[in-house]
Amino acid sequence: MTPLPVYERLTIVGCGLIGSSLARAVRQSGAAGHITVADASSAVRERVQALGLADTVTGDLGQAVSGADLVVFATPVLAIADAMAQAAPHLKAGATVSDVGSVKGSVAEALKASAPDGVFVIPGHPIAGTEQSGPDAGFAELFDNRWVILTPQITDDAPYAEAVARLASFWRAMGAQVELMDEKHHDLVLAVTSHLPHLIAYNIVGTAADLEEVTRAEVMKYSAGGFRDFTRIAASDPTMWRDIFVANREAVLEILGRFTEDLQALSRAIRWGEGEKLHELFSRTREIRRGVIAAGQESPEPNFGRDRGKH
Amino acid sequence: MTPLPVYERLTIVGCGLIGSSLARAVRQSGAAGHITVADASSAVRERVQALGLADTVTGDLGQAVSGADLVVFATPVLAIADAMAQAAPHLKAGATVSDVGSVKGSVAEALKASAPDGVFVIPGHPIAGTEQSGPDAGFAELFDNRWVILTPQITDDAPYAEAVARLASFWRAMGAQVELMDEKHHDLVLAVTSHLPHLIAYNIVGTAADLEEVTRAEVMKYSAGGFRDFTRIAASDPTMWRDIFVANREAVLEILGRFTEDLQALSRAIRWGEGEKLHELFSRTREIRRGVIAAGQESPEPNFGRDRGKH
Repeated sequence: MTPLPVYERLTIVGCGLIGSSLARAVRQSGAAGHITVADASSAVRERVQALGLADTVTGDLGQAVSGADLVVFATPVLAIADAMAQAAPHLKAGATVSDVGSVKGSVAEALKASAPDGVFVIPGHPIAGTEQSGPDAGFAELFDNRWVILTPQITDDAPYAEAVARLASFWRAMGAQVELMDEKHHDLVLAVTSHLPHLIAYNIVGTAADLEEVTRAEVMKYSAGGFRDFTRIAASDPTMWRDIFVANREAVLEILGRFTEDLQALSRAIRWGEGEKLHELFSRTREIRRGVIAAGQESPEPNFGRDRGKH
Repeated sequence: MTPLPVYERLTIVGCGLIGSSLARAVRQSGAAGHITVADASSAVRERVQALGLADTVTGDLGQAVSGADLVVFATPVLAIADAMAQAAPHLKAGATVSDVGSVKGSVAEALKASAPDGVFVIPGHPIAGTEQSGPDAGFAELFDNRWVILTPQITDDAPYAEAVARLASFWRAMGAQVELMDEKHHDLVLAVTSHLPHLIAYNIVGTAADLEEVTRAEVMKYSAGGFRDFTRIAASDPTMWRDIFVANREAVLEILGRFTEDLQALSRAIRWGEGEKLHELFSRTREIRRGVIAAGQESPEPNFGRDRGKH
């Protein structure tokens, strides 16, 4: 174990659900000696002050990153390039720059484009979250037993390798498990496990809302048959998700193509009453649920435990 | 309020998640004086005995329904026609026959086809469940604050209207709210709020399981980004769901057509980087989540409350 604090000075840029959870987790673990939060919104800064999430709260990005040992961008992904360009001249030599964005290819490019020599760019992504947004929605335990993927550059530079190991220690201090991955592969994996699920959820909720034959009130009343599950991730932050689909277009469209192809086959099986084909698929998918629970990424309780109070 | 018991003798045919939850709820509320459970599986009958869910447990359908005031079929929907045909000669005059199936058009036809004169056929559907199956998975509180849809025949027969009112009282005694609906409309509403969500969930989990570029282990490890939500309903009973898609083919294909059309428009918006279109949809869908929570059909807690232990 790396002794704490892992970094003397940490700066979090953008303090929504993830940024504020990180600030809380760092405070609780002692993984950084001093926490600075920079946010462009004065309303967010006021909440961060009131919640006591940081030692320094500022709207001045240059001031925020001066002297920081680790800078973590936690803004929507398309905002990272500009923020990094503004921050870059103020970064100190030996600082590590990372992020928490759900797309790594284009973010890595954006970070590297402005990074001065002697600064270590190590993109990152904690696979954790809720459907809520903003500094009040965060909590310190968000990263417990969740995976953080780092997508370091391939290099035999020893100081860079040390910086990667240090960033991994930092995330482990938040309770997370850390995996290193090629950024292109990350973007494909996340297109499957996160981006397509969100796209599908947004789409089905939109379809249901727009039907003429079934009212919105009916959709809401009778949602316990399955639909309500989809409304959760379809309530996620619109700006964050717009950016993700724009930034990871290629991988999302590739996976969406596979999904659509499979859906057409399923549709055909229903049209022709091919019960065995349906039964075969519906039996296989049960296994995946068991695997997700075994991997420690899901509650084993029925209905996600949402009925826990009931029985 | 109707005084309890609402029915002297109740027979439940098929004792899985819903049948066993009904038995437990009836026992707890005292809504029936005597509970008989009939199930074709000896393993299920043994569990029902061991759990003490019924006064009489039998594999003989004719014996089970003799003298019953209310018979509720709780088998997969395609099994109802045969079960009703077997039960019909043993039904007493004045008995009510209902079910809990997720499709009403074809089930109503099957029930009416065999029903003797003087028996009241009132199809029903409680919009409640979990992804688990079998008599051990049930619980008495499953129907609390959930909706039960009854699809009675349109008739001015007074005894029939009385039988409908009595069945509604019975379900209210389980804590449910009751709505009457045309069976064709029921099948369309449920295609939106339950059948399409299950179809999509089964499909996305199948797509993810079959990719060559991303391993199943990766899908499971990184599922907290959204995918894990879909694995819940994709773990539902395969036979039950095969039957639903076969029995409600027409409405499911109609709603699936709308979904696919919308998904193609969304796909195009991603391909052309039309951020505003995406943002507009992603903002609208949030409203629906709020409505589902306001309708009392969903936990307001983030992540369905599954992280409740964490913070």
